[in-house]
Amino acid sequence: MAINVVRFEYQNRVQWGVARDGRITPVQGSFETTGDFLRSAEAQALAGLQGETLNESDVAILSPVTRNQQFICQGANYRQHMIESGMNPDHKTFNMIFRKASSCIVPANTDLVRPAHVRLLDYEVELGLVLKRDITSATEVTDQNLHEYIAGITIVNDYSARDVQIPQMQFYKGKSYRSFGPVGPYLCLLSPEDFPLLRDLRLLLKVNGETRQDDNTANLVFTPAETLTELSGVQDLHAGDLLATGTPAGCALRIPGPAVVKLLQILPEKKRWTLFKKAQARRKEYLQPGDVVEASIYSSDRSINLGMQRNLVVTE
Amino acid sequence: MAINVVRFEYQNRVQWGVARDGRITPVQGSFETTGDFLRSAEAQALAGLQGETLNESDVAILSPVTRNQQFICQGANYRQHMIESGMNPDHKTFNMIFRKASSCIVPANTDLVRPAHVRLLDYEVELGLVLKRDITSATEVTDQNLHEYIAGITIVNDYSARDVQIPQMQFYKGKSYRSFGPVGPYLCLLSPEDFPLLRDLRLLLKVNGETRQDDNTANLVFTPAETLTELSGVQDLHAGDLLATGTPAGCALRIPGPAVVKLLQILPEKKRWTLFKKAQARRKEYLQPGDVVEASIYSSDRSINLGMQRNLVVTE
Repeated sequence: MAINVVRFEYQNRVQWGVARDGRITPVQGSFETTGDFLRSAEAQALAGLQGETLNESDVAILSPVTRNQQFICQGANYRQHMIESGMNPDHKTFNMIFRKASSCIVPANTDLVRPAHVRLLDYEVELGLVLKRDITSATEVTDQNLHEYIAGITIVNDYSARDVQIPQMQFYKGKSYRSFGPVGPYLCLLSPEDFPLLRDLRLLLKVNGETRQDDNTANLVFTPAETLTELSGVQDLHAGDLLATGTPAGCALRIPGPAVVKLLQILPEKKRWTLFKKAQARRKEYLQPGDVVEASIYSSDRSINLGMQRNLVVTE
Repeated sequence: MAINVVRFEYQNRVQWGVARDGRITPVQGSFETTGDFLRSAEAQALAGLQGETLNESDVAILSPVTRNQQFICQGANYRQHMIESGMNPDHKTFNMIFRKASSCIVPANTDLVRPAHVRLLDYEVELGLVLKRDITSATEVTDQNLHEYIAGITIVNDYSARDVQIPQMQFYKGKSYRSFGPVGPYLCLLSPEDFPLLRDLRLLLKVNGETRQDDNTANLVFTPAETLTELSGVQDLHAGDLLATGTPAGCALRIPGPAVVKLLQILPEKKRWTLFKKAQARRKEYLQPGDVVEASIYSSDRSINLGMQRNLVVTE
């Protein structure tokens, strides 16, 4: 049975708890990091948790992923998004991996700060996978044993400054500004029988009430098992680490078709990026101060519901 | 006065010590991370350290940067390397930043493991800066106050699987394989008066005794102060974190001239990378099992000498 847990602050103390119907049952014990909590006996015994409850609106919800954890991301991992970007999802040439700085992790409802020099601020709703245990050598992860490696799932918004990310080629800087990584509100811990639902989660993102992204994890190109298998052969992963699995179509960024991209390559670099920024700036989908972004993820039967993120865009 | 410190294991215990003339004076106390050590009072009082000494050859030297720390890298940051890559260093369009997974950090003399599917294994000697304190908001770092933010320097080899890094565009995966980040042997802690020497360090890398890279930090494009100023406006940095400042010319990778790059863009993606790999594979500079890579960094007056890394290339 899927269980939503929260990390929260109440009366100046950071705690973990189980969230049900607007109320939180606090977990005994103090766990500094997501890894510490997931490794604990308490996290294994949540289903039967009882006791006094708090009202969710009386506490400050924090990110269920703490900043000591790695924040690893996949790029271009939804079929329609790849097609729009001029790629063929059936070729599956490679699984694009990059990092965001963990200091960009903030609670789900934090204001999104647009840095003073950024004009092309974009949203990316993503399903976040939270690791259950350390993986320190090449490991064959399959759909059958996936529940041994993934503890749960959460909403991630991979906010991106396109005018930094795209011209500077490496995505790290343009995606790492403080407040660019809301995570939560809930970390939904999954039981083995919940895992088939990982292929049936609806991702929905609205800006000022208008739907911009609406897709389903059935359209993921590289699956969680494939991605963990490959990553395990590259680097160490730790309990509590976060893997954001890529965003569907519908971002403000409009990548020109392959023919235009090839033409752009012929231009001098400076001219190319001036044209890029000018063309993008005409798109009214980019976020402006005062905009409100709402992101949610849930299974069609609603047995999994990761809650909602709500970010108000503000200036620095 | 510059002081070389080492992190080492001796009689099953991990310790820190001061290295002088082949001998190590252990520091009292136990410090799990580089950050813990640098924040400690012991690290502030090393100049007068006395006591029993150990022979350097009797201990196992570890990386002076622990794997909890961030491993942040600059790309294309030496003048000649930029020119060879078709860029104009005087334009200084942007400071390219990316990450390596911290799990690739290994002691200076660790064997370099070439993953089974990698053919284009390349070396990159780099000066590594180790942070002195946490920086959690935008901060103006200058040549004058740089000593307040940088504790010391060390040798980094940013080993890279070019056949993964270049076709997959984001550098993270191709540079993060286990053993791809030797750090050390020494962390050279700098006094304020040593900082001018940061612009006068010779970087030297040899493969099987043949010089491949030989340049000086005088040719850095983005200086440490500029880079820390910009990074502080993006993300949090912590005491003990590692910033690798880019590599000079002389790698095995030969980037074709801008005209050829433009022509390549017109080809279908698969064809383009097949041609790329084929052309690169003809370059005998790429590392092969059995090769030995030696990297060293020192000031011309030798008052700073970061020691030598020696990596034997082995198969997986």
